[in-house]
Amino acid sequence: MTEFELIDLVGAQAAGARPDVVLGIGDDAAVLEVPQGAQLVACVDTMVEGVHFLPDTAPADLGWKALAVNLSDLAAMGATPTWALLALTLPSGDAEFVRGFAQGFRELARQYSVALVGGDTTQGPLTVTVTALGTVECGTAISRAGARVGDRVFVTGTLGEGAGALTLLRQGGTAPSAALLARMRRPQPRVAAGRALRRIAGACIDVSDGLVADLGHICTMSHVAAELDLEALPVSPALAAAFDRTQCQRLALAGGDDYELCFTVAPAHIADVTRALADAGCGATPIGRIVEGSGVRVLDAQGHEVTIGNPGWEHFAT
Amino acid sequence: MTEFELIDLVGAQAAGARPDVVLGIGDDAAVLEVPQGAQLVACVDTMVEGVHFLPDTAPADLGWKALAVNLSDLAAMGATPTWALLALTLPSGDAEFVRGFAQGFRELARQYSVALVGGDTTQGPLTVTVTALGTVECGTAISRAGARVGDRVFVTGTLGEGAGALTLLRQGGTAPSAALLARMRRPQPRVAAGRALRRIAGACIDVSDGLVADLGHICTMSHVAAELDLEALPVSPALAAAFDRTQCQRLALAGGDDYELCFTVAPAHIADVTRALADAGCGATPIGRIVEGSGVRVLDAQGHEVTIGNPGWEHFAT
Repeated sequence: MTEFELIDLVGAQAAGARPDVVLGIGDDAAVLEVPQGAQLVACVDTMVEGVHFLPDTAPADLGWKALAVNLSDLAAMGATPTWALLALTLPSGDAEFVRGFAQGFRELARQYSVALVGGDTTQGPLTVTVTALGTVECGTAISRAGARVGDRVFVTGTLGEGAGALTLLRQGGTAPSAALLARMRRPQPRVAAGRALRRIAGACIDVSDGLVADLGHICTMSHVAAELDLEALPVSPALAAAFDRTQCQRLALAGGDDYELCFTVAPAHIADVTRALADAGCGATPIGRIVEGSGVRVLDAQGHEVTIGNPGWEHFAT
Repeated sequence: MTEFELIDLVGAQAAGARPDVVLGIGDDAAVLEVPQGAQLVACVDTMVEGVHFLPDTAPADLGWKALAVNLSDLAAMGATPTWALLALTLPSGDAEFVRGFAQGFRELARQYSVALVGGDTTQGPLTVTVTALGTVECGTAISRAGARVGDRVFVTGTLGEGAGALTLLRQGGTAPSAALLARMRRPQPRVAAGRALRRIAGACIDVSDGLVADLGHICTMSHVAAELDLEALPVSPALAAAFDRTQCQRLALAGGDDYELCFTVAPAHIADVTRALADAGCGATPIGRIVEGSGVRVLDAQGHEVTIGNPGWEHFAT
């Protein structure tokens, strides 16, 4: 199987034809039309076997997730995803793997009309790097730097299920429920929510490393601190059925792999959040506030600071 | 060393500030301004240790080359490089490696005012994926599909030196000369040449897999065939000093890793080539012609077809 066939297989009908793809796969580079009045939004994310996914991950789930984690980054900016480039490093030309990977990738790409416009397939240890490109109306992108003292902190959906599924799989005892597994294998990027939050959220980030770690990035970039209310964290019935209360809270705070959006809202805009998200397929829960200082503190019902374990994870952390 | 520090190190002053970078490294995604009247050009390329570069490659050379091979793809479109995203997978947080890599990457990025606007560092087997973004005036990108019967085929610069250096290193006998090594380690993408060839070249490709293989891509996309004149292939004195005539020709035809531009020109525009390339830092040599049919044939001085060995290489070729 040649490089062109591999990429063709993934790219075929990824999104039907987009009229803004002037030149797609098969040339030295893609040529794309960014609409007038829009800015380009770009991000890249790599997944390595054994580090970001288990060696027995279904190829279709890997294809889905490699795109999903990037669309989640675009979502956090309030951007509309448009195009993607795929760099796939494979130990061998395993046609069955590629077919499965392509199917999962295409499934999500179609959902958001994302066209695969370029790629590179190489031989080596299994690694997937996706570059996602999107557009946003000029001046409306939501950065991490816009949190202000007095803002409320919100998070979409529920937290901890993906990490909960992984925990159960690693323990090897009780198998995770279908609901938990689905969150781990097929995370849904919050694209509609991100778009709905433009002009409402002050700052936004997607929760990939864990709520405390990612909210910490907002705090660093915005030169503020945050307080999280432990009892306010949204936990799904599926997670609550599999773990005790403390474990659920730890997973929600530090599990990562959630791909929900954590965002801040100035008091004047709080009433707009529910209305804006009405059509976005998810609600949002107020979970804390922005205060002066630095870092993220977690408070119990009595307002006392609690310490949790692993505050997210960072590659090569010393 | 954390993800942010790694990318910061590579990105710091990569190109000074570009006013078209609205939001760079440090957010979920970059926000970029594509000039009005321009189209976006995008490509991605991965380099894997042991497959695309030798394990003892100097980190600075790797940083340079990972960007260079992508700028070469943009050059083949006639595009101006503007931004890059870097996905770096490293076995460990080796600060010395990262400093070297960053230095080489920055050196080339500065030369072309390319801003690093995003990245991801992950732990795993050494792999570098660069996404390069550029712009081109609407409608002027040079594709692979524009070759027509009767066109002349040209190539910039000289061929075979990078592959020649690699051959000598692998043989372990005579060490390659500095000139050959430089071509292998620090290829110069033909950005100025590519831009100069807009509206002159019918089709263009960069020579990365080998002249015959890459010209073959032009033929496939353009539904034509090509004839190459063996005696016309441009070979440098450095290559001629290290290999006999037949070896030089084989390296020029099939060595790959040249990063020269192979392009086709209609008879009416042939006189424009030299003038257009006058300021581009390289000449171009006519090496053949586009004919009816399919595939690439190599002809000797008597016009007889000759067969060469390996016609370029393709990953996972069966």
